[in-house]
Amino acid sequence: MSSIAVVNAGSSSIKFAVFDAAAAPQLRLKGLVEGIGATPRARLSNAAGETLLTESPPPEGFDHAAATRTMMRIAADWLDGKDISIMGHRVVHGGPDFAAPLIVTGDIAERLASFIPLAPLHQPHNLAVIRAMHAEHPNLPQVACFDTAFHRVQPPIAQFFAIPRKYSEAGVRRYGFHGISYQYVTGRLREIAPEIAKGRVIIAHLGNGASLCAVKDGRSVASTMGFTAVDGLMMGTRCGAIDPGVLLHMIDQYGFGPREIEDLIYRKSGLLGVSGISSDMRTLRASSEPAAREATALFVYRILREIGSLAAALGGLDAIVFTGGIGENDKETRAEVCEGCAWLGVALDPAANQPGEQRISAARSRVAVFVIKTNEELEIAKSAWEILSAG
Amino acid sequence: MSSIAVVNAGSSSIKFAVFDAAAAPQLRLKGLVEGIGATPRARLSNAAGETLLTESPPPEGFDHAAATRTMMRIAADWLDGKDISIMGHRVVHGGPDFAAPLIVTGDIAERLASFIPLAPLHQPHNLAVIRAMHAEHPNLPQVACFDTAFHRVQPPIAQFFAIPRKYSEAGVRRYGFHGISYQYVTGRLREIAPEIAKGRVIIAHLGNGASLCAVKDGRSVASTMGFTAVDGLMMGTRCGAIDPGVLLHMIDQYGFGPREIEDLIYRKSGLLGVSGISSDMRTLRASSEPAAREATALFVYRILREIGSLAAALGGLDAIVFTGGIGENDKETRAEVCEGCAWLGVALDPAANQPGEQRISAARSRVAVFVIKTNEELEIAKSAWEILSAG
Repeated sequence: MSSIAVVNAGSSSIKFAVFDAAAAPQLRLKGLVEGIGATPRARLSNAAGETLLTESPPPEGFDHAAATRTMMRIAADWLDGKDISIMGHRVVHGGPDFAAPLIVTGDIAERLASFIPLAPLHQPHNLAVIRAMHAEHPNLPQVACFDTAFHRVQPPIAQFFAIPRKYSEAGVRRYGFHGISYQYVTGRLREIAPEIAKGRVIIAHLGNGASLCAVKDGRSVASTMGFTAVDGLMMGTRCGAIDPGVLLHMIDQYGFGPREIEDLIYRKSGLLGVSGISSDMRTLRASSEPAAREATALFVYRILREIGSLAAALGGLDAIVFTGGIGENDKETRAEVCEGCAWLGVALDPAANQPGEQRISAARSRVAVFVIKTNEELEIAKSAWEILSAG
Repeated sequence: MSSIAVVNAGSSSIKFAVFDAAAAPQLRLKGLVEGIGATPRARLSNAAGETLLTESPPPEGFDHAAATRTMMRIAADWLDGKDISIMGHRVVHGGPDFAAPLIVTGDIAERLASFIPLAPLHQPHNLAVIRAMHAEHPNLPQVACFDTAFHRVQPPIAQFFAIPRKYSEAGVRRYGFHGISYQYVTGRLREIAPEIAKGRVIIAHLGNGASLCAVKDGRSVASTMGFTAVDGLMMGTRCGAIDPGVLLHMIDQYGFGPREIEDLIYRKSGLLGVSGISSDMRTLRASSEPAAREATALFVYRILREIGSLAAALGGLDAIVFTGGIGENDKETRAEVCEGCAWLGVALDPAANQPGEQRISAARSRVAVFVIKTNEELEIAKSAWEILSAG
């Protein structure tokens, strides 16, 4: 039997996974390389999460491509003779056009490279890995799954900024991200609650990066991330939506250059900037500092405001789904969001608001509330399988 | 009997008015100077709006202070021996602290000058006029009414951005504007519908500048304009809320400097930028160009999204009030906004959606909808009277 490899490259890490090649892909191996560019550490686990092997590769020249090669080498020893017949990649940016997973040919790789200015922090790593794997395994199909693709069905009005048309036409528009996660969660909701999945749903992907997506009958209608992944909600270190006049002020009054602005809005703001303590929700929830409470309160307030905005895009609300690290694990955030959505007909069942995947709204709640554990790697494996079985 | 003079200085114009000094100030004279810095034209009218006099002052050195001096000189001839005993000014920025009108002393003028970096396009004109009038009429009290003051009662969480605390503490926070208009409209709603005015109200001040304010029992809870008057809704030439990553992209990919960014977001975006035709809603409504329809549709869509967001801040909605040039006069905008708010329980009475101040919602509408003509000059005169009669 053959298998599917999946690579999910972040800024300083890659997640790696191997699934059986099947319509319902079964996880076989899981890998993680962290500390790329600093002190790399690689770990391979089995489907049960038990560590099979760890390595500390020498840091010199150890980039995302090297991390992927390492994972492929390690994994080969544990595949029991199975061949990897296709490789799926999370690619952050599919630009205005790519709305579905596809096999990356040379032409497409060039087109994806043209989107680097739209996602300079992530797109180069995604492409470097694809190109390295293509060079090493020229006959292994490389499938790109785009974080923007899920949102390309949004009505045009949800995708445009109120800027001169020539910039919108040149690609300065709202793309939305976390699309692979939203795709997975939408599919999972269809399994758990098929009738509700046909309705008006807001999915809250709350992790270190955080966004909301309004989904109607399984299709994205609007989302809080915009042209970049810094817009919308407050995040671990990102500010989310902010008056553009603030950036001008930082330039004019504080003499900021573009890299200092980037550093401010991407790395020094959000939970970290407001609390002055940590970007990690767990640390802040455990803290008794007033600044920690102010940071978590602002995080929740911004979610509540954006839920209202997305409910407007949906024309009402039938369900909320929490996912991502914070959404799946922080029951206080879930409780506070549900409390703030009482005006929309949300009522939490506190007894159900516990770890695990489940419905957490009270029986009387007009809006159903769920926790669904996201699985981007499985979603990529499913897409790769579809392409493999179609071709 | 004495009278109250009011000056409302914009970027290239001043509105001027004289009221009887009384608890319910009656308008006596109205003035307008346009084209300051280009080809100035001054006009004085009576309370019925009939032109009493026009002048075309020589443009050299004719600034906001000169425009105000001209108006004071012209008006004196028509005041029938009445003295001006107090002068009220719209001042755009009252900073984090000033939450009520006050008499501008030397110390306060200095403090107001310290807010110039927060509103560089307006604050200098406001102060120049106050200082000129103080020099010319040292015994005439000069009252400042702040466009930010109405919002200072907002909960702190609505006033903070998710940026490092030191910048919030240095004044980089959400101020909100159009406060004098909101104050007036709130008072007027209390007269028209006192029970509804106690509830959860969104006031839509839609003019060339446009914002929404969420008001609960007469107090501002949140508003769409933020640190500057460019945030929030799409406007005539301003973009409103935009991903901060777009600004970085304009710097990195298009080589924009701060003045080019300012020009883009303040003067080239909004209805003008999207339509490529005009910043004037009347022109766009009359146009059959698809781009004109796209611009007005985006304008309405952004209002709908922000109404949802503010309804979340209010925990529901009891009324919407339209005001400002577009809000008072464009029945299509009102109809489209009401239609998009059906999910909140808004139902328009199309027969009532006509010119004039009135309730325009259907009897069955769960949310009441009103049109109220704003009157910033009258609100300033009332504030000046209160200070005059208290002192």
